[in-house]
Amino acid sequence: MQIAMIQDIILPIEELEAAYLDRGTYFGDGVYEVVRSYNGKIFALEEHLQRFADSLAAIGISGVDIDEIRARVQKAFDAAGIPDAKIYFHITRGSAQRNHVADANLKPNFLLTVTEVIENTKEKIKGISVSTHPDWRWKRCDIKSLNLLANVLARQDAAHKGCAEAILVDDDGLITEGAGSSFFAILGQRLQTAALTANILPSITRRFVIKAAGQIGLDVLEESLTPEQARSADELFIAVTTRDIIPVVRFDDKTIGDGAPGKYSKLLIQEFHEFTT
Amino acid sequence: MQIAMIQDIILPIEELEAAYLDRGTYFGDGVYEVVRSYNGKIFALEEHLQRFADSLAAIGISGVDIDEIRARVQKAFDAAGIPDAKIYFHITRGSAQRNHVADANLKPNFLLTVTEVIENTKEKIKGISVSTHPDWRWKRCDIKSLNLLANVLARQDAAHKGCAEAILVDDDGLITEGAGSSFFAILGQRLQTAALTANILPSITRRFVIKAAGQIGLDVLEESLTPEQARSADELFIAVTTRDIIPVVRFDDKTIGDGAPGKYSKLLIQEFHEFTT
Repeated sequence: MQIAMIQDIILPIEELEAAYLDRGTYFGDGVYEVVRSYNGKIFALEEHLQRFADSLAAIGISGVDIDEIRARVQKAFDAAGIPDAKIYFHITRGSAQRNHVADANLKPNFLLTVTEVIENTKEKIKGISVSTHPDWRWKRCDIKSLNLLANVLARQDAAHKGCAEAILVDDDGLITEGAGSSFFAILGQRLQTAALTANILPSITRRFVIKAAGQIGLDVLEESLTPEQARSADELFIAVTTRDIIPVVRFDDKTIGDGAPGKYSKLLIQEFHEFTT
Repeated sequence: MQIAMIQDIILPIEELEAAYLDRGTYFGDGVYEVVRSYNGKIFALEEHLQRFADSLAAIGISGVDIDEIRARVQKAFDAAGIPDAKIYFHITRGSAQRNHVADANLKPNFLLTVTEVIENTKEKIKGISVSTHPDWRWKRCDIKSLNLLANVLARQDAAHKGCAEAILVDDDGLITEGAGSSFFAILGQRLQTAALTANILPSITRRFVIKAAGQIGLDVLEESLTPEQARSADELFIAVTTRDIIPVVRFDDKTIGDGAPGKYSKLLIQEFHEFTT
């Protein structure tokens, strides 16, 4: 008899529920998005849905109706009634007995959560510390996939060092991005961040940061930084959907600027705020 | 109210079962093993348990008692009563609301399945075709983790081309290994396979293949091959727990040898068979 065992409980394999047969668990064979709302309005939903569609296509999950996903996101958001909400959703290729090559007829699994965004005002006002970690991620970080163990390990290392984010450094000694954020430096009148390649998530928040930078008269250079360049930058910050722009005031053992969020970071936070209201 | 949604069903987030909160699904935050039995006896269980312990340690999942895992494997295998069984098991860091940094007190999740090995005698006798694919995996393939989307995509590409395995080629143009197997070439009197680095799974089967090679008088060179070297090899084969040694008779568009399993591959299959009886 083919069997399964959950913790130390044995059961016939046929009785294993779909959640235990999810290819998301066996392989990370799925993609996800995180959107948030500001004061009752979901921010940049269409951009996130477009990226979700791109991720699904990149890993060959077909038959997902993006209009249906949009409707589910809106329905769940309305049901939750949380003005400042974080909405996470993923689709995996489906549930089946483990086999790398999937049956083409599998039905994708959809999971979504709506939780409250707990605004961390302190980190926005005071800034955060970050630490560097080797970029161990796979070579298709342009796909927002569920293969996030490298990100987890880097973030846990950062947390262990008392840091709020890990900044990933590739084999060439160049910063790619944060483990869960985009990474930016201000050098003089210039905003610098890595160009969008197969190693970089095409961050929606990054797009709005670059737009905001143009509005306050900064030049934008899309080119990777070295840790040394980051250490000597005038200002640093990270950007991520759930927290938008967060100033970085310490990079490994180096204090950035005078140890407080810089003027451009603060201006960008203000400009970004305009987009969300 | 914080909520969850499974497919299009909304429920309070508190009612989400642990299986839907598994860090294995959100992050691939877990490690796994596959062992098999031959005629009622599990092969190389201790070696697999040691590697499992190494993988757990490498990603910082602590508090797992390997003696307990051994007992569970044996109990499940006994309960199944399948002489030629494939035993898959994984441990994830636990179930919790999604957050990269895990609570240190999480209780790991264990899942195991025992299924029947369907021997594919034809592929052993006739050999298989393989196709190359870029190695998109992360940089710690020495850890047997649940981050396997790169492997899935490579294997699906191979299947699409009518091939039974994908052979992964890194940015330097060197073959690392198969998407789900080790990869070997015979050149003259020499067995060649990639050395064990952070990019290579320390395969248990590989260990026994190298032992068998010594027994039949082959030299062993642990050095990566290029696809060109593989194409001009006398013999090629892959090795994996569930199928041990499988001759490769076609590599991309190139027929290997005379298109049938070579003499050393056949000898190695015989030698390997001795270990398992």
